[in-house]
Amino acid sequence: MPLQKLPTASNVQKVIKNLNKNDGIIYLKGQVLHERDDTDVELSFRQESNFFYLTGVTDADFHVVVSLSTGKITLIAPDIVADHVMWMGLPDTPEELLQKYDVNDVVYASKLDQVLQQENPQKIYTLPICDTSALPQTFQSKVDKDALKPAIYEARMYKAKWEVEMMREANKISSDAHIKLMKEAKAGLNEQQLHALFLYESARNGAFFQSYNPIVAAGSNAATLHYGKNNAGISPDQFVLIDAGAELNCYASDITRTFPAGGKFSQEQKDIYEIVLEMQKASFELCKPGVEWEDIHRLALRVACRGLIKLGVLKGEEDELIAKHIPACIFPHGLGHSIGIDVHDVGGYLPGVQKIDEPGIRNLRMRRTLQAGMAVTVEPGIYFCDFIIDPLLKDEATRKYFDIEKLNQYKKVGGVRIEDDIVITETGFDNLTTVPKEIHEIEALMA
Amino acid sequence: MPLQKLPTASNVQKVIKNLNKNDGIIYLKGQVLHERDDTDVELSFRQESNFFYLTGVTDADFHVVVSLSTGKITLIAPDIVADHVMWMGLPDTPEELLQKYDVNDVVYASKLDQVLQQENPQKIYTLPICDTSALPQTFQSKVDKDALKPAIYEARMYKAKWEVEMMREANKISSDAHIKLMKEAKAGLNEQQLHALFLYESARNGAFFQSYNPIVAAGSNAATLHYGKNNAGISPDQFVLIDAGAELNCYASDITRTFPAGGKFSQEQKDIYEIVLEMQKASFELCKPGVEWEDIHRLALRVACRGLIKLGVLKGEEDELIAKHIPACIFPHGLGHSIGIDVHDVGGYLPGVQKIDEPGIRNLRMRRTLQAGMAVTVEPGIYFCDFIIDPLLKDEATRKYFDIEKLNQYKKVGGVRIEDDIVITETGFDNLTTVPKEIHEIEALMA
Repeated sequence: MPLQKLPTASNVQKVIKNLNKNDGIIYLKGQVLHERDDTDVELSFRQESNFFYLTGVTDADFHVVVSLSTGKITLIAPDIVADHVMWMGLPDTPEELLQKYDVNDVVYASKLDQVLQQENPQKIYTLPICDTSALPQTFQSKVDKDALKPAIYEARMYKAKWEVEMMREANKISSDAHIKLMKEAKAGLNEQQLHALFLYESARNGAFFQSYNPIVAAGSNAATLHYGKNNAGISPDQFVLIDAGAELNCYASDITRTFPAGGKFSQEQKDIYEIVLEMQKASFELCKPGVEWEDIHRLALRVACRGLIKLGVLKGEEDELIAKHIPACIFPHGLGHSIGIDVHDVGGYLPGVQKIDEPGIRNLRMRRTLQAGMAVTVEPGIYFCDFIIDPLLKDEATRKYFDIEKLNQYKKVGGVRIEDDIVITETGFDNLTTVPKEIHEIEALMA
Repeated sequence: MPLQKLPTASNVQKVIKNLNKNDGIIYLKGQVLHERDDTDVELSFRQESNFFYLTGVTDADFHVVVSLSTGKITLIAPDIVADHVMWMGLPDTPEELLQKYDVNDVVYASKLDQVLQQENPQKIYTLPICDTSALPQTFQSKVDKDALKPAIYEARMYKAKWEVEMMREANKISSDAHIKLMKEAKAGLNEQQLHALFLYESARNGAFFQSYNPIVAAGSNAATLHYGKNNAGISPDQFVLIDAGAELNCYASDITRTFPAGGKFSQEQKDIYEIVLEMQKASFELCKPGVEWEDIHRLALRVACRGLIKLGVLKGEEDELIAKHIPACIFPHGLGHSIGIDVHDVGGYLPGVQKIDEPGIRNLRMRRTLQAGMAVTVEPGIYFCDFIIDPLLKDEATRKYFDIEKLNQYKKVGGVRIEDDIVITETGFDNLTTVPKEIHEIEALMA
């Protein structure tokens, strides 16, 4: 699917502002084509995220030069190689590239030296991962690999309106695919077939990349947080957790739903699911500018703790259990992360901010004060993972907080996660994910 | 889908025999997990082909040591990391790995030094691409990166019976997917949707990797040999060329079919298609032990030349046209290549053999005397690619060989290729590909 012209020059302006230098250039080299090991099997091409952010280019072998004094954006296109044309067809002309991308000029790679000599920059700001070998020798000493990274990362943290619309489109494709899986699961598909179906529903709508390798986990497989084998059978009485999100035009989506394979929630499934749904709803209440992300994580954890005490799985006083980090063994990951061009997007921790070194919350990928324009996932979960829970059952000091019989009764639920992608607005948030999640909605959809 | 235990020890024996050394070890490190650029997005894991050939292992971070004096195969498994288990689940135990893989011993990576000290090899044979940094410093001077490569490549050239069955299985999945595409194309699917459907039909049968990026090319797009945009609409009067092959358990398939989107061949489509089919049938007549691969290419070219003269597209004497390399502008690629764990498999040219520096045939990926056990693609084609033909039309010396009016009449056919995967047997060949290709069969299938 050809991209519409994306207003990426506005991204460049944000980066220039953050970088705050009057002289010099920004230089990035885009991703090149890679082959697998020493074969000639071309790996699927995906643009490097920061290069995409500045240019919108999704083809290989481009460079970009941005003049910090004039703001001029020059896109450097690969030279035309006749033999290549025979096999691959004619590439876009510079005029066509100017139509396609939000840049001021397009030249061929053989002119890179000339562009640099004209700019004659005193500093060349680039990223630590950027291959600068194409720069002429005389300019190598001007390369600065430090200042640009925080400037780009902070720019990427705040999504422009058009970026939100890109993410909404990716979310729409993924949401529809999740709905399709719920509808088809009752036919007795196994994990592999559901996985394949998700890829298909994404690709036929133009999303040939996934934002990450999908997790399709039935029953206790869902208790393994990053389960990725996706090769087991599914019985109708099992819960199925699907964590999958298509990438569209380099923008990610990241959605999880958990549903009963047979279409009807058992009592145990309903009990756990309702707690997780409540964790998400309570989190949403706090999703607005000015709130600390870790406070929302802590709230979700508290809701989980309260719910599990009420069910009888955990025993004791809520505050005591939380102080002892007991519920973290059942909600062991972070509440969510920033999302954008990468599924775990940049900017989750400002320079100098440390992770909180406590069980569970140490896995939180973001500690930021929420602000309008930030896009995050909200993905609470409850898991019955022996590998994580057993040490607490074996320890005299913590065993008392569990009702073993109740715990065993709920173990077959495996794991539940509910995950949406939201964007913080001036007054609250905008939920980009459109898959139903109320129990009655899911049962109706699957009926 | 879990693999059955593959008899890869027989591969190791072939390599040991080819290597023909009495002392030392073979050492290979398997592929590791890679993340995309500086993100934490894991790229899909695909084992390095030579490592797979010796071990059958499809997981990351293994090594293998083969003693040349005893033939003992020791698989080195990654150490268990507790934090990893929380996210990924428990890996196979050494006992389970011994059940799964055709090796004599399994130890953890922390024991690699010990394994080497016991062997105390005077030579360590490995591949040029192999990362040997895990070997203790004292052994670095013993590393030989030259001798193993031809030994493995020549072993891989001759497929064992079980390897042929693996390729037959991959071909079955791909063949069924091609048939599905023919059946669905009439509904008006575009290139993108056909591409997505091929991936789906592969993946739901367990093949989540393609052997290469599929080509789905309608009309004149098929004249671009490696067209890969796959984003155009398709009208019912267009030919559609699908070049796509699923990879199953690391074995490739590579199949091309060309069919009319609307289900009925036009006269022009039929004319060109029949020549290509005749090129393939004539090639098959020669596919048996003792025949030079380039002779079969030259025969196919001659059949194309004859057919195009008969149609009136080319003018003049067959021998003269071939001597002037005229038909090479219409059949500009090689007849086929070896296929196995890689789609363009190793061993196509023995050390010292040069490519034939003439138009068309210089793109031949193999010059070998056919022998039983070799697996090759047979993929003749005819293309109307302006970029390749125009220079000959502009040249006084070659323009006379073309009937421009006839040429223009056939241009809308775009490109036709018919490609099957075969294995040379003692008496001829075994065709692994099961997609129909006779005109009446395709029309019946699409009716």
